[in-house]
Amino acid sequence: MIIVLKPNAPEKRIDELITEIKGIGLRVDVSRGAEQTILGLIGDTISVNEVRFEKNDIVAKVMRVQEPYKKANRLFKPEGTVVRVAGESIGGKRLAVMAGPCSVESERQIIEIARQVRKAGAGFLRGGAFKPRTSPYSFQGLGEEGLELLILAKKETGMPIVSEIMDAAVLDKFVEHVDIIQVGARSMQNFSLLKELGKLKVPILLKRGFASTIEEWLMSAEYVMNGGNENIILCERGIRTFETYTRNTLDMCAIPIVKRLSHLPVIVDPSHGTGISWLVEPASKAAVSLGADGLMIEVHNCPDEALCDGNQALTPEQFEIIMQKLGPLAELEGRSI
Amino acid sequence: MIIVLKPNAPEKRIDELITEIKGIGLRVDVSRGAEQTILGLIGDTISVNEVRFEKNDIVAKVMRVQEPYKKANRLFKPEGTVVRVAGESIGGKRLAVMAGPCSVESERQIIEIARQVRKAGAGFLRGGAFKPRTSPYSFQGLGEEGLELLILAKKETGMPIVSEIMDAAVLDKFVEHVDIIQVGARSMQNFSLLKELGKLKVPILLKRGFASTIEEWLMSAEYVMNGGNENIILCERGIRTFETYTRNTLDMCAIPIVKRLSHLPVIVDPSHGTGISWLVEPASKAAVSLGADGLMIEVHNCPDEALCDGNQALTPEQFEIIMQKLGPLAELEGRSI
Amino acid sequence: MIIVLKPNAPEKRIDELITEIKGIGLRVDVSRGAEQTILGLIGDTISVNEVRFEKNDIVAKVMRVQEPYKKANRLFKPEGTVVRVAGESIGGKRLAVMAGPCSVESERQIIEIARQVRKAGAGFLRGGAFKPRTSPYSFQGLGEEGLELLILAKKETGMPIVSEIMDAAVLDKFVEHVDIIQVGARSMQNFSLLKELGKLKVPILLKRGFASTIEEWLMSAEYVMNGGNENIILCERGIRTFETYTRNTLDMCAIPIVKRLSHLPVIVDPSHGTGISWLVEPASKAAVSLGADGLMIEVHNCPDEALCDGNQALTPEQFEIIMQKLGPLAELEGRSI
Amino acid sequence: MIIVLKPNAPEKRIDELITEIKGIGLRVDVSRGAEQTILGLIGDTISVNEVRFEKNDIVAKVMRVQEPYKKANRLFKPEGTVVRVAGESIGGKRLAVMAGPCSVESERQIIEIARQVRKAGAGFLRGGAFKPRTSPYSFQGLGEEGLELLILAKKETGMPIVSEIMDAAVLDKFVEHVDIIQVGARSMQNFSLLKELGKLKVPILLKRGFASTIEEWLMSAEYVMNGGNENIILCERGIRTFETYTRNTLDMCAIPIVKRLSHLPVIVDPSHGTGISWLVEPASKAAVSLGADGLMIEVHNCPDEALCDGNQALTPEQFEIIMQKLGPLAELEGRSI
Repeated sequence: MIIVLKPNAPEKRIDELITEIKGIGLRVDVSRGAEQTILGLIGDTISVNEVRFEKNDIVAKVMRVQEPYKKANRLFKPEGTVVRVAGESIGGKRLAVMAGPCSVESERQIIEIARQVRKAGAGFLRGGAFKPRTSPYSFQGLGEEGLELLILAKKETGMPIVSEIMDAAVLDKFVEHVDIIQVGARSMQNFSLLKELGKLKVPILLKRGFASTIEEWLMSAEYVMNGGNENIILCERGIRTFETYTRNTLDMCAIPIVKRLSHLPVIVDPSHGTGISWLVEPASKAAVSLGADGLMIEVHNCPDEALCDGNQALTPEQFEIIMQKLGPLAELEGRSI
Repeated sequence: MIIVLKPNAPEKRIDELITEIKGIGLRVDVSRGAEQTILGLIGDTISVNEVRFEKNDIVAKVMRVQEPYKKANRLFKPEGTVVRVAGESIGGKRLAVMAGPCSVESERQIIEIARQVRKAGAGFLRGGAFKPRTSPYSFQGLGEEGLELLILAKKETGMPIVSEIMDAAVLDKFVEHVDIIQVGARSMQNFSLLKELGKLKVPILLKRGFASTIEEWLMSAEYVMNGGNENIILCERGIRTFETYTRNTLDMCAIPIVKRLSHLPVIVDPSHGTGISWLVEPASKAAVSLGADGLMIEVHNCPDEALCDGNQALTPEQFEIIMQKLGPLAELEGRSI
Repeated sequence: MIIVLKPNAPEKRIDELITEIKGIGLRVDVSRGAEQTILGLIGDTISVNEVRFEKNDIVAKVMRVQEPYKKANRLFKPEGTVVRVAGESIGGKRLAVMAGPCSVESERQIIEIARQVRKAGAGFLRGGAFKPRTSPYSFQGLGEEGLELLILAKKETGMPIVSEIMDAAVLDKFVEHVDIIQVGARSMQNFSLLKELGKLKVPILLKRGFASTIEEWLMSAEYVMNGGNENIILCERGIRTFETYTRNTLDMCAIPIVKRLSHLPVIVDPSHGTGISWLVEPASKAAVSLGADGLMIEVHNCPDEALCDGNQALTPEQFEIIMQKLGPLAELEGRSI
Repeated sequence: MIIVLKPNAPEKRIDELITEIKGIGLRVDVSRGAEQTILGLIGDTISVNEVRFEKNDIVAKVMRVQEPYKKANRLFKPEGTVVRVAGESIGGKRLAVMAGPCSVESERQIIEIARQVRKAGAGFLRGGAFKPRTSPYSFQGLGEEGLELLILAKKETGMPIVSEIMDAAVLDKFVEHVDIIQVGARSMQNFSLLKELGKLKVPILLKRGFASTIEEWLMSAEYVMNGGNENIILCERGIRTFETYTRNTLDMCAIPIVKRLSHLPVIVDPSHGTGISWLVEPASKAAVSLGADGLMIEVHNCPDEALCDGNQALTPEQFEIIMQKLGPLAELEGRSI
């Protein structure tokens, strides 16, 4: 941490500040310029609140020189994390593909889709039981019944399941049956929920908030990891910008960036990220070329009648074609799908 | 709702679509152009999901002509809502000023600040017990102990209290003692929480999400109101933009806009909205001139030592000066403070 | 400027870097930590390109500690600049109000509006002759003919005129007749144009680019000042955000911020900033309360028939009412209007 | 175009409005609801200004149902445009790669780089002579001398050259010698310049403004095409968002979107789009997978000493490696490089 002092800060005050800094266990290096003096704080500054210095009236500026996350930081764990779940893995050589409907709607729907995406090569079945919807008048998901149907589909097909949790109140049920618990974009900074998830061993799929920086996203991963659960899968799903053609702007470069900053696996959700079904194929291809560890794709047996986000869902046939096209791309990256 | 059909949509398909629309209880007016046919849907379309039409391959575009919120809409309740709580009111002639520390830190701190802000004219005491912090290594608030101290300060001073809830798990305690339950920016779309709050009668202070549109904000109010709780106070607190000088960009014009679109009272939080203490005075003055129904201001007896957001907190003396300056401005708006 | 070195940077390389820095005339202070060494560069670093250091493979990070603008910086000129033009001044006690139509449309129109806004108290007549329009199919302004009509209105009423330049090719005509040359938001980083304007003495009204930071805006002022023309008036006119209700989001807090960072006067354009005529009054009031040195307001004798931006224009009667309301607010700020 | 009337609009006023619309040569279809009446305007509405209707006090809302661009619209020219220049083409089967330094710095530098990028497979040499820089204290390019050096490199290597124009004043020189004239992001809405370029036959590389929507970008292409020059190459180069890790956020999905909306070729500039040299490879791969027609990449023989943007430049060796990796990806898209 660097503290830039104001020009003409009195020596006495500078000395007091140095004493204060030493008092919290840090070393101080002093660099005196003709106009400005600069203090370099040496030691473990991650938990030091810069505000205490910023408020000092002889201080002009406080700057951090280190990333504020530790457990998620690749600096402290150079090799990539591979999350293992139910015989599948995420972050390894094979790309993890999670496919299924936005919402679980009926037994027939979810089982039919599960079989179809499995046949096309998906490793995981995704399906929403509890749906975050902007309007209280929109379909809110089937809730616990939806979860039951998803569990049924898991039994029928053997596929591990991924589903979003919105509320710690139903956590027990998730822990028992859901293989990967998804934290949606709107919950990325639901810190109470993150703390609860930190107590588990179940892998967490942590979507990036639609207005969160990469650093904030990694800090939310740090919340869960700090609680003891290091099985985190990050998921880029688009950020909010001024562009209105797509629902969100997929921040594609976030993939290689996160891979460099953190050891955690990162996948991409091109369905929510764009909101447009015909963009799923090109966006998926790009994600693979950028080094993503997997994809989360919405597939519906009848997108025209989907109760939620039908605009972005693919038919099983379209999904199968994409999977075939992704193969050679994955191979170019030294991966398989 | 307007449905624009694609050029050359076959008559038979158009007829089927019209039959489908009538089947859900709406009237249809058909406007046939040389190139495009347009359908006007007449009736209660708020709960109709446009996706079902967008997915129809003869449809080019679906457009809504009405706001998607009803209970929060001024159209259906032209006079402004006044929220009454513990002898005070928000939305009436007198501006509601909520002041206090970002975090409750100790008995002495909160009681001292409460007395000072009360003396300076604040009507409500704000104080955080549960704090949403980006980093797990930052101070997270005193939790239930903080709430107890806040309740103590309420007893000591008689001031109604405002505090943020992050988790429905502690709702009972809030309901019993907290006069206004605050929903923070990061929780604005925590729909599970909003539904719980909809079952109460306690007034809810609903902060705008930092990346939420005005319409989404009003939709979140609609969630609570749809549950039965119409005591909502909206609070503008800045949005995320590309500008980095301030922590957020206060969307000042949102005040008159929300007042026009909705009957709910709206206040402004210039402390979080800017993150800079010397901006609180000018931003507060602007808010009053723009018709805000009140202000939420951070005051700390010792901002330099605040455990949280000290950079934006005012001293009680600074707060008092602002209160005095706001008086004549409020008067110009036909209000008092 | 601060250079943070990577852990384990070899001593030899550090010495070479220090020699390089000294070679460009700067002093270096070295702060050696257990893990990281930090170099403090002392001297005139404004013209030093940090990239040369960032590319050095022993360097982890380069950080600037000073603002990159000098001539526009209040640090080097504490008292505010007052721009004087044709007997009027901007930045002084009296607020500068520039009013008139978006586009000059006819002799009768511009003279009639000029008389009306003058009567209502405006000090300057604004009118567009060359209009930047997103579509080539929209009205592009009357061009030189429009400028002639504006000059005519100036002769008739004695009001100094403000008009936007889009192209240095017509600069001579502007220099001869236009009292304040406006640089529009889309031209804020037209550096060729800024350099030409720097050679003049005519005051320049520099609008903020709709996606420019406050620092970039001040850097554009620096371009003109660096050329020798220090008569700059800054104008906040809204930034582009995700919110779509208003055309732009007025960054109201930019007013007190710019007043603190720079000595240049700053005015606000609530008409373009919001794009909605009924927001002009509240936004103007807020601007005055925030310390703006003036306003630029669109007034049209017949907004319904305006060839450009009629949605945001006020009638002369509405303008007059606003001017009356602003009086007491200006007085509270120790200003007049 | 759709006009939604306010509830209870008087019949007489509705009739007057219909008469007005017919008067400008459009047909009107009227759809009367219980609460609201809607008018459908049939005919060529692209040049109709919606404001004239929005200002009518019986009108609630005006909505466009067609894109506002014609000449750039794929609807009116389904097959893709191939721009041909100096024996090379852009938009055809072979990807167009433009490589070279941000700034031309010396004869030796530009000729050396030209030879190297040509050897690695680049079809075009890019080099900046006139540089748009945020700070007046940064290197502004060699100007006309730089252009001469670029022309020299063209003679030496036979490569067609691409260079940015900032000012119509030097247009003649560009027309005579530059094969593709680049319009930079900051000039995308320099409408005076666009009109001048519309009079030429020289191909124009039109970069997307960093805060421009896709529609505004296509409207700027429309400006040039409307003047008669249909040789436009679009170039995505990143947009401004809240994320600060990269200089801009590359809007990767804009590639397939623009390909669908328009018949014009589109390339990507991953160097400016990210500002980070190690992101150029993954971003280039993604661009190819997304269907881009080419790439513009910064290559410098000595990035550490580059006078401009050295942080994002590749060495010729790094560039060669990327070119090799792109080959198989292009092949998967049915393209070559």
